[in-house]
Amino acid sequence: MKLAMVGLGKMGINLVANLRRNGHEVVAFDLNQAAVEEAVNLGATAATDLDDVLAQLTSPRIVWVMLPAGKPTDATIQTLSEKMNAGDMVIDGGNSFFEDSERHNALLKEQGIHFFDAGTSGGMSGANANGNFMIGGDSPEAFKTIEPIFKSIAQEDGYLYTGKAGSGHYLKMVHNGIEYGMMQSIAEGFDVLEHGRFEYDNEAVAKVWSNGSVIRGWLMELAQSAFSKDPELESLKGVMHSSGEGQWTLDEALKLQVPTPVIGLSLMMRYRSLEDDTFTGKVVAALRNEFGGHAVDKK
Amino acid sequence: MKLAMVGLGKMGINLVANLRRNGHEVVAFDLNQAAVEEAVNLGATAATDLDDVLAQLTSPRIVWVMLPAGKPTDATIQTLSEKMNAGDMVIDGGNSFFEDSERHNALLKEQGIHFFDAGTSGGMSGANANGNFMIGGDSPEAFKTIEPIFKSIAQEDGYLYTGKAGSGHYLKMVHNGIEYGMMQSIAEGFDVLEHGRFEYDNEAVAKVWSNGSVIRGWLMELAQSAFSKDPELESLKGVMHSSGEGQWTLDEALKLQVPTPVIGLSLMMRYRSLEDDTFTGKVVAALRNEFGGHAVDKK
Repeated sequence: MKLAMVGLGKMGINLVANLRRNGHEVVAFDLNQAAVEEAVNLGATAATDLDDVLAQLTSPRIVWVMLPAGKPTDATIQTLSEKMNAGDMVIDGGNSFFEDSERHNALLKEQGIHFFDAGTSGGMSGANANGNFMIGGDSPEAFKTIEPIFKSIAQEDGYLYTGKAGSGHYLKMVHNGIEYGMMQSIAEGFDVLEHGRFEYDNEAVAKVWSNGSVIRGWLMELAQSAFSKDPELESLKGVMHSSGEGQWTLDEALKLQVPTPVIGLSLMMRYRSLEDDTFTGKVVAALRNEFGGHAVDKK
Repeated sequence: MKLAMVGLGKMGINLVANLRRNGHEVVAFDLNQAAVEEAVNLGATAATDLDDVLAQLTSPRIVWVMLPAGKPTDATIQTLSEKMNAGDMVIDGGNSFFEDSERHNALLKEQGIHFFDAGTSGGMSGANANGNFMIGGDSPEAFKTIEPIFKSIAQEDGYLYTGKAGSGHYLKMVHNGIEYGMMQSIAEGFDVLEHGRFEYDNEAVAKVWSNGSVIRGWLMELAQSAFSKDPELESLKGVMHSSGEGQWTLDEALKLQVPTPVIGLSLMMRYRSLEDDTFTGKVVAALRNEFGGHAVDKK
């Protein structure tokens, strides 16, 4: 099939490679000209702007938006809603908040444009081959049109049509919430080993746990890979950034009043890791000093 | 090789099947005669008691103990320490607490008997084929004698000699602590979906997450299997039992003063699930009523 990829960052460029390897024609656009050239080297056709993207496609035109969530995606979908026609299709493969996707869907639907929110998992390697996609969209019939794209670039059984618009990004949001908890659990276990009573080779541990254990999975294989390069992770600081989905999962759980203590605490531990010192720590130290005269660490 | 399996429960009997399929001679013993007959059907030789077990083995005699942790394992290893000779070998494949394993090692070492604590993961299916083993033991040379056993019944790269006695069960303990957190995370995610804004097919979600996503792994495949049999798990109560390793991991983390909030909280959520009602809940309800006259639910 023929489609456009708008956004050629780490995920977008790997999706272009995946699409090209599977015989799709790709019109590639990014503000970064070097990324466009990389896509052209992968066999894509360059586009100079969104008008050029749309001019190179034939009806029904399919545009896959692979941009950072928030303003970049918002602005692009707004523009597409003005320039595309009824029957055309927009796929948002980024990590948009599901309510934004519902809004994008409503905006495009006014023009008769089909919208699909495709939560994308599997990291850069998954984007490149055997990816994972959770795709929402109000029209199951329209999904059938684009299904061959996902079937060809996904892992076998690695894509799912999840129902109405928003449900793809909602599912990806919860996926990421689970990911936060799994990662924190794995990390705490290695922390116990690191300080514990025996000496272990972290890479060897991650390797044995990756082969036949109950906790085997891709995250453990990634841990093995990381420890193979830096056995004690001495080159890193333990700062855990996040990009929104964990917080959205917790926000949603709170709205639903569904207890998700471990996902919530995993998120809090990420925030804690961003601080060199904490005001909480100062308050507790001050109170211990007030009631018991306990020593405090002073600046 | 020839060895004895003492304890033919769910794990032991599957290990016998695995060992037999890989050409090992197995002397099988259990207090449950039906289990012994099952082992005989798998090609093992029956033994009537520990004396008979030892009489059927040749030096160096290898006895794999696969019993519940605690008293059953303690008693058996005590007896073996009295009946076995220098150079003989005992493997504890159960989920013994690592300090018990250190004690068992000291006891057997007095007689010159080699002890190996083999943490075993991968569940019943892993015991049956492509298992996962973390094996501690003071003598790396003695481990070489039994290594072919593990090499033949483990998943490729699925066994690791972890160093001195106790280190195998210690590693398995931490493995299980990680498992608690991973399971709780996965479960909380499905809980959000269950109460959330969209309708999902739990089995389909677990399936797509098992194929190419970041959170893919054996636990997600097991979730898929469980949902395939009971899509909303309506036949179950949400009671989460545990068998010690999570608590030991938290005990150890507290001793080491290593923060493991998510593993700890996962354990606490298991304990919470065992209670129909909580005294905590009553205290909070009573206090809200005391200070604000807030309504309470009365028995």
